[in-house]
Amino acid sequence: MNIHIENDANAVSALQLTLARLRQALDDHPQLKDQFTLTENSDPTQTASFLVESDILWSGRKLEIDSFDTPRLGWVQVMSAGVEQWLAHWRDGITLTNASGVHGDKGAEFILMASLMFNFGMPGFLQDQTLRLWRPSFGGCARGKTVMLLGVGGIGAAAANLLSAQGYRVLGVTRSGKCEADVAGCITIDDVDDFLPQVDVLVSTLPLTPQTHQLFDRRRLGLLSAHAGVVIVGRADVFDYTALREMLTAGELAGAVLDVYPQEPLPQDDPLWGTPGVIMTPHCSLDDHSAYLESCLDVFIDNLARYRQQTPLRNQVDTVRGY
Amino acid sequence: MNIHIENDANAVSALQLTLARLRQALDDHPQLKDQFTLTENSDPTQTASFLVESDILWSGRKLEIDSFDTPRLGWVQVMSAGVEQWLAHWRDGITLTNASGVHGDKGAEFILMASLMFNFGMPGFLQDQTLRLWRPSFGGCARGKTVMLLGVGGIGAAAANLLSAQGYRVLGVTRSGKCEADVAGCITIDDVDDFLPQVDVLVSTLPLTPQTHQLFDRRRLGLLSAHAGVVIVGRADVFDYTALREMLTAGELAGAVLDVYPQEPLPQDDPLWGTPGVIMTPHCSLDDHSAYLESCLDVFIDNLARYRQQTPLRNQVDTVRGY
Repeated sequence: MNIHIENDANAVSALQLTLARLRQALDDHPQLKDQFTLTENSDPTQTASFLVESDILWSGRKLEIDSFDTPRLGWVQVMSAGVEQWLAHWRDGITLTNASGVHGDKGAEFILMASLMFNFGMPGFLQDQTLRLWRPSFGGCARGKTVMLLGVGGIGAAAANLLSAQGYRVLGVTRSGKCEADVAGCITIDDVDDFLPQVDVLVSTLPLTPQTHQLFDRRRLGLLSAHAGVVIVGRADVFDYTALREMLTAGELAGAVLDVYPQEPLPQDDPLWGTPGVIMTPHCSLDDHSAYLESCLDVFIDNLARYRQQTPLRNQVDTVRGY
Repeated sequence: MNIHIENDANAVSALQLTLARLRQALDDHPQLKDQFTLTENSDPTQTASFLVESDILWSGRKLEIDSFDTPRLGWVQVMSAGVEQWLAHWRDGITLTNASGVHGDKGAEFILMASLMFNFGMPGFLQDQTLRLWRPSFGGCARGKTVMLLGVGGIGAAAANLLSAQGYRVLGVTRSGKCEADVAGCITIDDVDDFLPQVDVLVSTLPLTPQTHQLFDRRRLGLLSAHAGVVIVGRADVFDYTALREMLTAGELAGAVLDVYPQEPLPQDDPLWGTPGVIMTPHCSLDDHSAYLESCLDVFIDNLARYRQQTPLRNQVDTVRGY
């Protein structure tokens, strides 16, 4: 079997999997040592010639699989958690595994930070600072406040555990209405509207699927109270950013901590940059480059053993469901 | 015995102790019920006439005790943790108790938030946002980073426990080199210089005393690495704010989360408002008005029972040491 590594030549070196590193990882596992041939490429003009002879693909950049001839390809491991762009050009019969779970530790810390920032009124104080206004306000502790987590996958579950340990009341929202993390309660998306008015912090780690696209439109955002904050670290297109921006400007929400945007990089003339209450990070708050490649490689090596034994893979994407 | 309540007429009502509330609290304790006469005042021109006939004082505003005739006064309970302004006008033989510990829960959460903000590069991203610059950076998790806590009293101990639970390596700094909170290590102020280069976040909850005044001058701040952040929630005059501002402007520190200032409110023309990397809250991040009065009252009622039994009071200030 041939494993092909497709690297992104524009990525930092910490995110490029070398032949030597993969060889070393395989050699460390008796079951996998000497079982595979390996190829590597980062020249897009050469990709097709590699894919035609590959059984397994590790990919560090997005490919339109249906545009290639892939007679032997059975499985693709990607380095992202979100896969909607892959699925838009997929080929039936190929297994897809993603990097879900790799973002958990750092993502949970970021969500805790953002939740605390709302509790301490940071969106308002940051704005007051630019206006040189001294306007103290004396709120209570964060513990006991309600955080709704949209999505309780790798990041969401880690965040649920961290927030609950911190004393937050955590409401999980999942497709099934069940989740295995430490939450006060878990509901389905159908019941979200009933709970939104009591939410202090709304956090989305949701993937983009046909079901989640624009799920939080103007009407649904309007169910949040004016003191609520919104944290978006999943896919941006789950939310109506125009409505979000207009509600923040009108003071109908306390603030938004955003790591993702409908267009990235966010265009310089986008009014979101200067919207009151918006605190922005440039799509980097969940990725830990110092650990990312190794975490992905852990998943991949584990999956290689499973693949040879024909047991179910970790992080396998349901290509119909979309995540 | 007469207990006199001196309220601050300019304070919000949530911070004013009424006669009815104190009477109710006393009535709830069989030992204290019907043991005291009570007076209350918020008119500064009348304060002297009340103090001359009082044995115990609860004060919601600062008084120059040595300017009053206090023949019976044996004990003063104040509503602040810092007492340097009281001690500047003190009278020997009177016991002083403060509100130390009342700020612990909220203060610890604020310190955790600030520490996480440095980990996620918020001082830089907030600045980039104003400049509409998209400059991602992919750092690691907060856990494992080193926080030095200057002062491990009520707030510091609560912060130590919270930060350690979060996976931070916490170094406590106390007068004795010992502390009872959950820390990786505890040192005296004499050893601080040796440890400063390895600090990721420096947090001060120190009171202002002759020993702490300008303790962090330009030389000592210069021992911090350029990626370190500074959080000041104790007294401002422990730090040289001019040096701090100049070092931030020069990029010699990653940022500062400040709740206290050499002059408050901070004058509109103070350059600190616009200093890169500075995140400001207006001296309100440790006080929880919804719980503050009741927390202070808990201390006071407990101390009243101790005072009658002539056992040591909680939160008694060492008037020589200064806290």
